[in-house]
Amino acid sequence: MTQTLPSAAAAVPDPSPDLLARAAAVRRAAMALGQCGDDARRGAVRAMADALERATPRIEAANREDLEAATAAGLAPSLVARLRLDGPKLAAAIEGVRQVAELADPLGRRLLHTELDEGLVLERITVPLGVLGVIFEARPDAVMQIASLAVRSGNGALLKGGREAVRSCAAIHQALREGLAGTAVEPQVLELLTSREESLGLLKLDGLVDLIIPRGSNELVRFIQDHTRIPVLGHADGICHLYVDAAADPPQALRLAIDSKTQYPAACNAIETLLVHKAIAPAFLAAAVPAFAAAGVELRGDPAARALGVAAAAGEADWSTEYSDLILSVKVVEDLAEALAHIARYGSRHTDAIATADPAAADRFLAAVDSAGVYWNASTRFADGFRYGFGAEVGISTQTLPPRGPVGLEGLVTYRYRLRGEGHIAADYASSARRFTHRSLPL
Amino acid sequence: MTQTLPSAAAAVPDPSPDLLARAAAVRRAAMALGQCGDDARRGAVRAMADALERATPRIEAANREDLEAATAAGLAPSLVARLRLDGPKLAAAIEGVRQVAELADPLGRRLLHTELDEGLVLERITVPLGVLGVIFEARPDAVMQIASLAVRSGNGALLKGGREAVRSCAAIHQALREGLAGTAVEPQVLELLTSREESLGLLKLDGLVDLIIPRGSNELVRFIQDHTRIPVLGHADGICHLYVDAAADPPQALRLAIDSKTQYPAACNAIETLLVHKAIAPAFLAAAVPAFAAAGVELRGDPAARALGVAAAAGEADWSTEYSDLILSVKVVEDLAEALAHIARYGSRHTDAIATADPAAADRFLAAVDSAGVYWNASTRFADGFRYGFGAEVGISTQTLPPRGPVGLEGLVTYRYRLRGEGHIAADYASSARRFTHRSLPL
Repeated sequence: MTQTLPSAAAAVPDPSPDLLARAAAVRRAAMALGQCGDDARRGAVRAMADALERATPRIEAANREDLEAATAAGLAPSLVARLRLDGPKLAAAIEGVRQVAELADPLGRRLLHTELDEGLVLERITVPLGVLGVIFEARPDAVMQIASLAVRSGNGALLKGGREAVRSCAAIHQALREGLAGTAVEPQVLELLTSREESLGLLKLDGLVDLIIPRGSNELVRFIQDHTRIPVLGHADGICHLYVDAAADPPQALRLAIDSKTQYPAACNAIETLLVHKAIAPAFLAAAVPAFAAAGVELRGDPAARALGVAAAAGEADWSTEYSDLILSVKVVEDLAEALAHIARYGSRHTDAIATADPAAADRFLAAVDSAGVYWNASTRFADGFRYGFGAEVGISTQTLPPRGPVGLEGLVTYRYRLRGEGHIAADYASSARRFTHRSLPL
Repeated sequence: MTQTLPSAAAAVPDPSPDLLARAAAVRRAAMALGQCGDDARRGAVRAMADALERATPRIEAANREDLEAATAAGLAPSLVARLRLDGPKLAAAIEGVRQVAELADPLGRRLLHTELDEGLVLERITVPLGVLGVIFEARPDAVMQIASLAVRSGNGALLKGGREAVRSCAAIHQALREGLAGTAVEPQVLELLTSREESLGLLKLDGLVDLIIPRGSNELVRFIQDHTRIPVLGHADGICHLYVDAAADPPQALRLAIDSKTQYPAACNAIETLLVHKAIAPAFLAAAVPAFAAAGVELRGDPAARALGVAAAAGEADWSTEYSDLILSVKVVEDLAEALAHIARYGSRHTDAIATADPAAADRFLAAVDSAGVYWNASTRFADGFRYGFGAEVGISTQTLPPRGPVGLEGLVTYRYRLRGEGHIAADYASSARRFTHRSLPL
């Protein structure tokens, strides 16, 4: 599933004339899609789901070929498992496409409505971004998910799958276009890129592509961020913390810690470090050490934690390591302030939680931790678009600028200002012949 | 006022240990500032204005030294004029700082409020970005404006002025810190960078700086976009259009055209190209050609426009040139569709307008033009944060992602998700022991 990345020093080649022409065709089709109404876009996504259903045997056959090639090439079993797209997994992905069709329309929402002067009215309206460039390192089922989110939100997409999934992606893309063929949306809104050169050329399509969504490793995200002017929606590291405060309820805090670490350890919203207030550390760790051992979690502690039963030692590197595995570093802290300082220094601004019965400590934590998600007495594993009620997720962003955190359909829209006048000119305001009213109107 | 930019191939040096330490100090101070309430931040900005007033003689003296050095170095008179910060201009800038203090608080607004399950409540709350990196090529008065917007919105800032303004910027920075010294906000939230090495090192401060705001040439903006992973708020070209539709009212359309071109020709929201429907072109240009001549505007036309009285010829390059001067290209188009295609091909997605009395044509234009601002019967010169009613402007963004268009205080905030639970864990939902309610709560 991994892509070979050229070194950062290597120049990214300019897009080929063929890629430019295909991207321009996607853009033209996307501009038309952006003017389709809610029903047309919803109908198009439903037609995509129907076509995927009809193409199920073809997609499964293509996937079997990919699997055979991957096995022959000696791909790791865990990667082969992610590549597999058999009956139930494909059916679930198609059901996901249907669910995207039913999500509320993110377009045409009026975010601002102001009378600038009599007869001069400003609106801010949500509109599609335009064209998405999506680079997958991972599972071919993500192609269906992103394609449906793109069309639902009025965007075109250039999709580049991992090279191991090339046959599966081609079969899915063909089905998606067949589905669109009978609808108001041109099939050209979805284009598939197949070569590594196209994937690199995509990074230079500014003006034609509005957002790049990398679905893959931290290394992939960083490479893309370093080689494009196009905004990148991505999360790099997920180094999440749970701080067990002096006023925590120990059994509840332990439940939260176990869930945050073990419910899906490879997820970016799993915790990597447990911070424990020194006053509660003896009692808490007395229960936590055997509980984590029973859950198969290896603990690595600072000297204070080791004195309280943690067997292995944590080194400096542990505090900034995303294990993505059943490993957890443990540090005993003097107080809340030390916990906050540790999170500020080592955290990745993803999701951090406090376990406490003290509302003042919770308020301080919620105000001071500068992460996309800050939780009080809840597992960090809730950092997810579905769990937040967004219905579907494009990805999770640890960037500071919006969209931040779990990103749903609304991450695929921007806004546009519309101004309607009656011949109003700026010179009249510069000369004070007229004055702005700046009156808020109902949304 | 220009900065010498190394070639894109030259590596950007890593930040020096000194710069890293100073940026970390800004970040620490900014985190504390971000937890200050509305009154504290408002008071801090007022204190900044008071201190600038007290420091007026010192700032004027420093500015005179900058002016003498600039004159001795043979700087162009127009650049010297922009550098000048004498009594009335300084007083106006200080008044601008006071106005920023009075703007509504952009922080702590609840954008989303959802009960995920009984006792598990999610909020999305506006919070500061953190630390801004601002690189000025232009006037030293912009330092006061950006510093006040930063503090009002709870952000720290690393400020790098143009080298011609080095003494003025230092005097302003000193006054701003003196003002903060007596307030709840630490003076360290505002740091001044002085060397070109620091300015380049700033581009590599990801993790410490959250947004880079370049205030200068298109060349500066592109250089920065190519050399940083940090998001950049900027506008590159402003190639704005006015389309005079067949159903336009000719005198009104001409008023709009003259204002859009001449009210401030160097502004990015001035038009560079006039598109005229062929049916109205003879009557419209018969009046427009002498009117533009009287306004000192050089017209450059396509063959059809030249046949109707435009003297000079427009070449292919004219359609993608931002003149920033009293020059306007003119093209006669077959219909609205050709106008839309021209704007899609040559526009910079900044601001484009239609002059028409036909609501259907206007609606089509407003829906189809993919620019940050689309106007009907209004001058493109209204594309401005003050005119939009935002009270102050960070800049104008032609990027697709929000913040887009004129950006006010709200462009300096992001949001954070806060989740409050009672020990809720994700495993209970994965096992269907509990179900999400996803109930919207009042904002």
